[in-house]
Amino acid sequence: MKFLRYGEIGAEKPGVLDAEGRIRDLSGVLPDLTGEVLAAPPAFDIDTLPLVEGSPRLGVPVARIGKMICIGLNYSDHAAEAGMPIPAEPIVFMKATSAIIGPNDPVHLPRGATKGDWEVELGVVIGKTAKYVSEAEALSHVAGYTIVNDVSERAFQSERGGQWTKGKSCDTFGPVGPWVVTPDEVGDPQALALTCDVNGERRQTGSTASMIFGVAHVISYLSQMMRLEPGDVIATGTPPGVGMGMKPPVFLKAGDVMELAVEGLGTQRQEVFAD
Amino acid sequence: MKFLRYGEIGAEKPGVLDAEGRIRDLSGVLPDLTGEVLAAPPAFDIDTLPLVEGSPRLGVPVARIGKMICIGLNYSDHAAEAGMPIPAEPIVFMKATSAIIGPNDPVHLPRGATKGDWEVELGVVIGKTAKYVSEAEALSHVAGYTIVNDVSERAFQSERGGQWTKGKSCDTFGPVGPWVVTPDEVGDPQALALTCDVNGERRQTGSTASMIFGVAHVISYLSQMMRLEPGDVIATGTPPGVGMGMKPPVFLKAGDVMELAVEGLGTQRQEVFAD
Repeated sequence: MKFLRYGEIGAEKPGVLDAEGRIRDLSGVLPDLTGEVLAAPPAFDIDTLPLVEGSPRLGVPVARIGKMICIGLNYSDHAAEAGMPIPAEPIVFMKATSAIIGPNDPVHLPRGATKGDWEVELGVVIGKTAKYVSEAEALSHVAGYTIVNDVSERAFQSERGGQWTKGKSCDTFGPVGPWVVTPDEVGDPQALALTCDVNGERRQTGSTASMIFGVAHVISYLSQMMRLEPGDVIATGTPPGVGMGMKPPVFLKAGDVMELAVEGLGTQRQEVFAD
Repeated sequence: MKFLRYGEIGAEKPGVLDAEGRIRDLSGVLPDLTGEVLAAPPAFDIDTLPLVEGSPRLGVPVARIGKMICIGLNYSDHAAEAGMPIPAEPIVFMKATSAIIGPNDPVHLPRGATKGDWEVELGVVIGKTAKYVSEAEALSHVAGYTIVNDVSERAFQSERGGQWTKGKSCDTFGPVGPWVVTPDEVGDPQALALTCDVNGERRQTGSTASMIFGVAHVISYLSQMMRLEPGDVIATGTPPGVGMGMKPPVFLKAGDVMELAVEGLGTQRQEVFAD
């Protein structure tokens, strides 16, 4: 299944894609697509659900994301382009949930930003609380997968003291979606191609096969420190090709368009604005 | 006013302290103490509110905290004991909201923890959305003040690669409360004494007068990067006297008791357990 939320910001309704890729309204079946609901949706007959007319805005496909945990430098070739060593353990940071937007919503560079950057990532949506889980049981806690653009401001992230939070948590720096695709449709989460284009030029190309720490490992690892709750999202790191890794570096400016894809999970498209 | 939430976990009711320090039930007046409600509570006559019998558990005094933003090394003498330089700009990190607990709930050291530590802090509860606000207007966005224990695991924080998140976001590492005290009762937030005792011995002594970056500066600074929303909490940094700064260092173990106080904001008391 491909679950989604559609409609204006703050008034999204739950929906699901049918076999023809059309949106069907789920609001008669369930109130909203929380992590719990995504993990165990009630039964429905997709062909009897109302068809949604037109091309509504797509919202964040998970309601009430409790926390967004990000893994840094999880592709060895991205670590190399960032000039950082291969991590011995997952690098963990948080993105403010106030940064999360729909998959095609505009991205705003904050005032003073000079080094905005893109990062296509596989997003993991937790469906069942995970605490001290083993790697073997980790994937049973996943409700589905989605795309995350871990938009970053490199100067805020690395040149203004201390932790990465400042460059990761700016408003609109967390596009999520378009859908949450259930694990049965995704298959092996470590065999998905990822791409990111900027202004029509291919910038990032990768495969989740190249992750240093795979999804099951990351879930197990995080759950040793903090419980993962239904509706939490993990952004699992980005493959090479970010702007700061280009020679010379290239950063986002107003008018740029980012287009992201992860195999089987659809596409995102964001236009960039400057505050 | 001193607002609070009381009752079992997940079933807390809103309350308020009366002039005699007794809990009065607010659930007939308002549904819950969100940031918005705390910033503009409806009128009530405190003497007509029902008295709450006994000594119920105190919950987190703010419902649905959206994000907890922490400021690191914000007291110069704490930076010195941590062996870190005085920051030129606020150091910003996030604590997972899943770590937040009531002011007197037990603190659990996660499996493998060896360097659990205490940090008494002034907590700022946002009442009104702040985005690109000046320092002069910053405090008008505050709903009230509370105590935060920014419990930390130093090995997870600093010896396991990358960012501080791992040592800050463990479950139960964010006691908040006992109350949210409204700004009119607090007066100058930069003139509050803070203390932390462990097993009855005074470990931390400080004053918010010694902050490197005051509350108004921190709010204005953060709001240049990310919007602050009603119900967000900022933990503003800790004065000297943490365990890792002692010679030799002293860390938390099962059975320890932490007692925290901030002038005018009440006290917290947590017993420590090991998972």
